[in-house]
Amino acid sequence: MGPKRAIVLLSGGLDSATVLAIARSRNFECYALSVEYGQRHRAELNAARRLAVALGAHEHRTMRVDLADIGGSALTDIKVPVPQAPGSGIPVTYVPARNTLFLSLALGWAEVIGAADIFMGVNAVDYSGYPDCRPAFIRAFEALARVATKAGVEGGRFHIHAPLIEMSKADIIRAGVDLGVDFAATVSCYQADADGKACGKCDSCRLRAAGFAAARIPDPTVYRP
Amino acid sequence: MGPKRAIVLLSGGLDSATVLAIARSRNFECYALSVEYGQRHRAELNAARRLAVALGAHEHRTMRVDLADIGGSALTDIKVPVPQAPGSGIPVTYVPARNTLFLSLALGWAEVIGAADIFMGVNAVDYSGYPDCRPAFIRAFEALARVATKAGVEGGRFHIHAPLIEMSKADIIRAGVDLGVDFAATVSCYQADADGKACGKCDSCRLRAAGFAAARIPDPTVYRP
Repeated sequence: MGPKRAIVLLSGGLDSATVLAIARSRNFECYALSVEYGQRHRAELNAARRLAVALGAHEHRTMRVDLADIGGSALTDIKVPVPQAPGSGIPVTYVPARNTLFLSLALGWAEVIGAADIFMGVNAVDYSGYPDCRPAFIRAFEALARVATKAGVEGGRFHIHAPLIEMSKADIIRAGVDLGVDFAATVSCYQADADGKACGKCDSCRLRAAGFAAARIPDPTVYRP
Repeated sequence: MGPKRAIVLLSGGLDSATVLAIARSRNFECYALSVEYGQRHRAELNAARRLAVALGAHEHRTMRVDLADIGGSALTDIKVPVPQAPGSGIPVTYVPARNTLFLSLALGWAEVIGAADIFMGVNAVDYSGYPDCRPAFIRAFEALARVATKAGVEGGRFHIHAPLIEMSKADIIRAGVDLGVDFAATVSCYQADADGKACGKCDSCRLRAAGFAAARIPDPTVYRP
């Protein structure tokens, strides 16, 4: 019997890179999955490709889905501006049903390769405004996976691992550094340029910079002028 | 207040055409959603476009997803032959996590347009081998939708309607005829040609032909020589 296989959702950002490193540290053979969903920050996908190699993923695939067709988010709809300051409630950068969709794609691939474990970098602390970043969502998806799949019907159980879910951004950064993640290779900015250079102004940039400051670790992010 | 909106998953086959007619008969303003997932039977998508218009959908969109990338089904992987006779257990035409994915896409669009109802043509009688065609799956997805969405967090409830789930193929055909569905415009064959002409040999063709026979309704399907 070979090593246990896991699907790891890999966006190319700081969180999912750390999750891949965590999954590897637990000796999973990792199948990294990126999703191109019409997001503005395509630099993330290039980062994902490099990170998959650097962090020892067994395989990396990018699936395309046209979420832009349904609109409704600053991340996929060019008519909705990316906010420059934190708001209250659920942010406009929330993409409807995004994590449900990502987990569905991961679940499909998991069935094909016989993996029972899926890792994702959702976080309930920094992104408390996103409904699909909460433990209740993770548990509900595990329950769904049991009845939705051939493996589940045959008695298998899927585990959705969300190791960052209760961690602060500073905790995540410290965990990633301990596992050798090169955060300079990650892209978090909602409006990064083609080279992955960050704006330094969007919510995601602010959270990231604050995380490095709180962790007392030098911020390797390259900001554009 | 306008009419209640619903997303209707529309493949272009007999079942989903009937579901659209049912949703319209219940006075929903229908947003028909087709998914192009690398399936062989693209003639279905052309049929879906025509059926959306004929059956009075308010809008019709087709989303593309690359399920072929993950393989694992005779419907998306050209290396797996389409079976010519019924087998036992879960058929090789089962696409991993397909209905989970379709419902995720429908859920995302539902959130954007403020719809709380999603209709789909799953059927537990004729397709008992597919885990994601059972009532337990539908209930688990409704539970997921409550915690996965902005609307759910704010107290809304999503209803996944599966009006065909306990119906035989003959029942479905009778219901569709009563609602004025032109079944000649639907495509069920797993390996239909570009014009939608059916093979008459695959599982789907056999179930469809048997349904018309059992309903004592002339079969309008066009078979290729």
